[in-house]
Amino acid sequence: MRDVAVIGVGMQKWGELWEKSLRDIFTESALLAIDDAGVDHIESMYVGCMTSGLFAGQEHLGSLLADYLGVAPIPSLRVETACASGGAAFRQAFFDVACGEHDIVLAGGVEKMTDVDGGGATYALSTAADAEYEVYHGVTFPGLYAMMAVAHMHKYGTTRDQLAHVSVKNHHNGSKNPLAQYPFEVSLDQVKNSVAVADPLNILDCSPITDGAAAAILCPLEMAGKLSDKPPIKILSSAHATDSIALDSREDIAWLSAVEKAGEIAYTGAGLTPSDIDFVEVHDCFTIAEICVIEALGFFDRGKGGTGAESGETAMGGRIPVNPSGGLKSKGHPVGATGLAQIAEVTKQLRGGFGERQVEGATIGMAQNMGGTGGSCVVHILGSV
Amino acid sequence: MRDVAVIGVGMQKWGELWEKSLRDIFTESALLAIDDAGVDHIESMYVGCMTSGLFAGQEHLGSLLADYLGVAPIPSLRVETACASGGAAFRQAFFDVACGEHDIVLAGGVEKMTDVDGGGATYALSTAADAEYEVYHGVTFPGLYAMMAVAHMHKYGTTRDQLAHVSVKNHHNGSKNPLAQYPFEVSLDQVKNSVAVADPLNILDCSPITDGAAAAILCPLEMAGKLSDKPPIKILSSAHATDSIALDSREDIAWLSAVEKAGEIAYTGAGLTPSDIDFVEVHDCFTIAEICVIEALGFFDRGKGGTGAESGETAMGGRIPVNPSGGLKSKGHPVGATGLAQIAEVTKQLRGGFGERQVEGATIGMAQNMGGTGGSCVVHILGSV
Repeated sequence: MRDVAVIGVGMQKWGELWEKSLRDIFTESALLAIDDAGVDHIESMYVGCMTSGLFAGQEHLGSLLADYLGVAPIPSLRVETACASGGAAFRQAFFDVACGEHDIVLAGGVEKMTDVDGGGATYALSTAADAEYEVYHGVTFPGLYAMMAVAHMHKYGTTRDQLAHVSVKNHHNGSKNPLAQYPFEVSLDQVKNSVAVADPLNILDCSPITDGAAAAILCPLEMAGKLSDKPPIKILSSAHATDSIALDSREDIAWLSAVEKAGEIAYTGAGLTPSDIDFVEVHDCFTIAEICVIEALGFFDRGKGGTGAESGETAMGGRIPVNPSGGLKSKGHPVGATGLAQIAEVTKQLRGGFGERQVEGATIGMAQNMGGTGGSCVVHILGSV
Repeated sequence: MRDVAVIGVGMQKWGELWEKSLRDIFTESALLAIDDAGVDHIESMYVGCMTSGLFAGQEHLGSLLADYLGVAPIPSLRVETACASGGAAFRQAFFDVACGEHDIVLAGGVEKMTDVDGGGATYALSTAADAEYEVYHGVTFPGLYAMMAVAHMHKYGTTRDQLAHVSVKNHHNGSKNPLAQYPFEVSLDQVKNSVAVADPLNILDCSPITDGAAAAILCPLEMAGKLSDKPPIKILSSAHATDSIALDSREDIAWLSAVEKAGEIAYTGAGLTPSDIDFVEVHDCFTIAEICVIEALGFFDRGKGGTGAESGETAMGGRIPVNPSGGLKSKGHPVGATGLAQIAEVTKQLRGGFGERQVEGATIGMAQNMGGTGGSCVVHILGSV
C-alpha cells in the first residue's frame, strides 16, 4: 500500500445553521478543504453521515453531494457507522488512495440535525442503539451513558466532580476555537448545577445537537509536495473495531472494548505506544465517554480516567492533552461530521503555528471517533513528516 | 493491487419474510456464503443497506450485524448509495482485499421492507430521489421512471409491448429460480392489463417490495485454492459512477449517463468490450430501466433497447442474455441486497453446472446495480479462471 497524506482540511462554524441545508453545509466544508489543499479537482469521495434519512428525508448522499459539489460522475459513496461515520469515511478514503485506485480523494462528513423537533432528534439518534433490545424499551443515549457512568462510579469511585472537570476542560479549550458551537467557558459549579438529563449526567455533561460538516483531502504522500503547498500530514495508521451495540450484551459496561481494540491496532500499525502520542482528539459525546476512552486507549490505567481532567493531565500543557479543539462538548456534535472535524484539528495542530490552541511541539496526534455507546470505534494516528 | 476472487455466495428465498427480522435475514445469507466458501472465519465485512433507519428504526448496522454474526470485533461498515448499496458494499470489500488490508472479507446486503405500511415504504424509497426538488413536490419512483419511459417512447418509438416483453422475459427466467419472490410466468396480456401504477407503467412493470439479503466472500485470487474447494471467480473490474439524482438536472432523461460511465470504466479496467460479455444481470427496477441500461452498457444502440426482449436477443440463448436470475422484477428487490444477489447469480453461472438456468459456456459475466433513477451505478465484471 502507498503512504497517504492529508493535504487539506475544512469546516465551517458549527451551530444551529437554520439558513443552510444539508447539501449547503457539506459543500461549504468540502470547498474549504479543497481550497486549503490547493487542488483543482478530486477523483473520488466518501461521505460520512449517520441518519440523513431520519433527519432530512434524504438518502443517496454520495451522488447528491458529488452533484452539488460539481464533481459527478466521480465515484462518491456514503458510509455509516453511527457517530463514527466521519472517521469511517476518512478510513475508506485512506484505502482508496493507499491501494492506488485514486490519487486525490475527499472524505467528508455531515449532519443536519436541527430541522426536526427534539423528540425527532432523540429518536433519530436512538437508531445507533439496538432497536429491538434497547430503544423498544425506551432508552435514549443520555440514559445509556448515564448507566455507564453509574457503573464506572460504583466500580472505580469516579466522582461527580471528575465528570464535571471534563466539561470544564473541554469548554476552556473550545473557548479558543472560533468554529465551535459553544465557544465559552463553564465553571465546575455551572456543570454540577445545570439541569439534569439522566442522573448523574446534566445538560453540561452532554454534547449538543448541531448542524455541521467537515472534510479532508487525501493523496499519496509522494505526490503531496507537487499537489499542495501545505505541509503534508502522514496517516501513520488506521483502525476500526466493533462491539455489541447493546449494552446488555457486554461483559463490562464501564469498559469500551472496541476502543481498546481499535487503539491496539492503531498503535501496532504505527509502531507506537500511548506515550508516543502528543495529543488526542477523543469522542466525548458525554463527559463519562471521555473518561472511558482515555482508559481504553491506554493513556490512563483502568478506572483512573476520572483523574485526567481533575488533575490537569489532559489539559493543554498537561501530560496528554485531550480535545484541544474543545471536543464534541464545546465544538458541537453533528454526528456524521465529528470524525472529520477531529482529523481537521489533528492536521492543523501537526502543521504547527496554530495560534493559542497549538499543542507545543506536537508531531504525532490521534483521532478517536466512536459510534453509539462504543459499538464501533475508528482510530487514526497522524504524524508530521 | 492484488487480484481478488469470489469464493462463496449466499441468499435465502426472498419474499415477505414476516417471521424474520433484518438481523435474521442478513445473518442467514452471510452464513450461507461462509458455508458456500468453506472458510472458518472472516476478517472484515461491508453491509449494503439503503434505509434501515426508515424501514426498521435501526442504523449502525455494521456493528450490529457483525455482533449477530458472531464476528465482532472485526471492522464492519455499512455503505449506502440507495438501491446500488449492495454493489457498493461488494466494491469496498474488493478494495479491502485488493489493497492487502484483509484476506477474507464478507460483502453483504440487506433490506427489510415489509414491516412498514405501503405509504411508509413509498416514502422510505423516495429518499433515493432529491428530497428538496423531487420528493417535496410529490413524485415517487414509479412516477419518475414513468417519465423516463414516456420520454423514451416519444424519442425512440419504444412501445408498450416492448416494455411488457421485459417483464415476460424476466418472469420466465425467474420461474426457474427457486429463491425468487415471484417464480412464475406472466403473459404479455397480463402485463399490459395489470393495474396501472404510473402511466405507462403497470404493476407488472414494477419490481416488488421485498425482504431479503445476499452475501459474498472475497479473498486474494492466489489464496482461493487453499481457502475453498469452490472454483474461484475472478473480479476482472470494478466501477462506480454518479450523476444528478434529480431527473430535472439531466440533459436527457431517456439516457443513463452514470451507467454509461461505469460501464466504460468497467470495460476499460477488464480490457473487454460489450461483445465479450456472455450474460449480464441488470437493475430492472422497472421494465423501462432494463431497456435504458442495456443501451447505456453498449449492448444495444441508443434508442434500440426496447427491441431486446421483444426480439429474443436478451432471452436465455439469445445474443446477450439479460437477467438469467429473473432480475429484480421476478426475484424481488430488497434494495440493499440486490447488488449482492446479482453477484451471487453471476458467480454461480460462471462456476457452471447451474442446472436449467445455466447460460451455456459462460466465462465472463457482468453485474450492473443502480441507485435511484440512475444517480449512481456500480458495475462489476467477473470471469471464470
